[in-house]
Amino acid sequence: MTHTAAMLETAPSASRYDLGALSPCIESCLDCAQACTTCADACLAEEIVGKLTRCIGLNLTCADVCAATAFALSRRATSDDLAVRTLVDACVQACAGCAEECEHHAEMHAHCRVCAEACRACEQACRELLASV
Amino acid sequence: MTHTAAMLETAPSASRYDLGALSPCIESCLDCAQACTTCADACLAEEIVGKLTRCIGLNLTCADVCAATAFALSRRATSDDLAVRTLVDACVQACAGCAEECEHHAEMHAHCRVCAEACRACEQACRELLASV
Amino acid sequence: MTHTAAMLETAPSASRYDLGALSPCIESCLDCAQACTTCADACLAEEIVGKLTRCIGLNLTCADVCAATAFALSRRATSDDLAVRTLVDACVQACAGCAEECEHHAEMHAHCRVCAEACRACEQACRELLASV
Amino acid sequence: MTHTAAMLETAPSASRYDLGALSPCIESCLDCAQACTTCADACLAEEIVGKLTRCIGLNLTCADVCAATAFALSRRATSDDLAVRTLVDACVQACAGCAEECEHHAEMHAHCRVCAEACRACEQACRELLASV
Repeated sequence: MTHTAAMLETAPSASRYDLGALSPCIESCLDCAQACTTCADACLAEEIVGKLTRCIGLNLTCADVCAATAFALSRRATSDDLAVRTLVDACVQACAGCAEECEHHAEMHAHCRVCAEACRACEQACRELLASV
Repeated sequence: MTHTAAMLETAPSASRYDLGALSPCIESCLDCAQACTTCADACLAEEIVGKLTRCIGLNLTCADVCAATAFALSRRATSDDLAVRTLVDACVQACAGCAEECEHHAEMHAHCRVCAEACRACEQACRELLASV
Repeated sequence: MTHTAAMLETAPSASRYDLGALSPCIESCLDCAQACTTCADACLAEEIVGKLTRCIGLNLTCADVCAATAFALSRRATSDDLAVRTLVDACVQACAGCAEECEHHAEMHAHCRVCAEACRACEQACRELLASV
Repeated sequence: MTHTAAMLETAPSASRYDLGALSPCIESCLDCAQACTTCADACLAEEIVGKLTRCIGLNLTCADVCAATAFALSRRATSDDLAVRTLVDACVQACAGCAEECEHHAEMHAHCRVCAEACRACEQACRELLASV
């Protein structure tokens, strides 16, 4: 449905990352940034928002890191390997931290349950990308 | 594959937008932001980059606008209807302008052809979202 | 202190915007995006966060729109005039909406008072940019 | 001129970072993201753009990383210390890499000279932030 794989195939392949791991990683980062943005918003609408403030904060930073990671990884021809690798590390940590917090609220709030799934999928996709080098 | 629809279904539905139009619009915006980022990078790697500078510039602004639109639309509970509607208008214009430029290069550069498709799909999804209100 | 004006002076001046209005507008957009991000975070730490959820949501969307506007305006040589103009309109609306909400809480919360000032300054800088064309 | 320091002073101070180092670091990150965005655009307008493509690519990723870092650091009350620290590391690397490339072109292109200054200032501000913990 997305154009990610087709776009990456048409671009010069100078980057260190394997295309088979790169395309799902970029898509997972964008998906996680979206899920975290909506989870933060949904948490704000809960009556017990006062108990979800840590979740909201982690959601917001995870969204920022995932979006930056997706766009940095989308540049294959002109990449800064060292900085991008560290950025992917930050993404793994942000996703793991956000997933752990969302999992605490997963039974009570469906948005936290779905968001934790998106975070875990992104954490895994980033780890597979790093392992593919 | 993405969690977008599931996330939006779990969130309180205070926004003016129809969920059936909203979820594909958000996904198209993220897909277009990704495609434009990779298209700009691929253009930079072409020998005739000097003839693609307008394309690269439109790619970059289209990516910025699409990403901001996706995240603003991902907040259903707490939205600023007027600003978000104008932002979606800007997204329609950025996608149309970028698509038109990419279409000029579509025969010669596969990345421009695929990117133009992503831009047109996003332009259409944004128009359908606006029409659904 | 910032390099914004110096950067813009060194870049080719193909854009429609006056440099005297452009540089402060870009700086105001970045300042407002920063203020809104910190205001949302500070609201989350207030005991009465349940009464500040609308403020937080408007903060987050205002930050997204201001950041996208700052970066789009930073491209003078390769710009999409129509889309960027509409984006600046969206920025005016997002800043005005966020400022109005923050002003309601300004007496009780210093972060809302300062954030409202940043939003009003950005709204004004965007209006002056549009008027300079 | 900016509201950054005033905003941070009004927010709850749960974060590990020293306010005296945090405020200039956030401002340097935003300034560097702006400079890199304009430098990429100015490079695109140079006749010898074909020799500046690596510079443009590093500019774009540096801008993405700096913007994400600025916004993540702007959340003091609700932070993910581990991920944010790694993100600041990525920012140091992205700024150092981009500065080094821009310095190669500094004599010929004023935008690269100014951008290299903004990158070095941001690299230094990030290092001082990390050292302040």
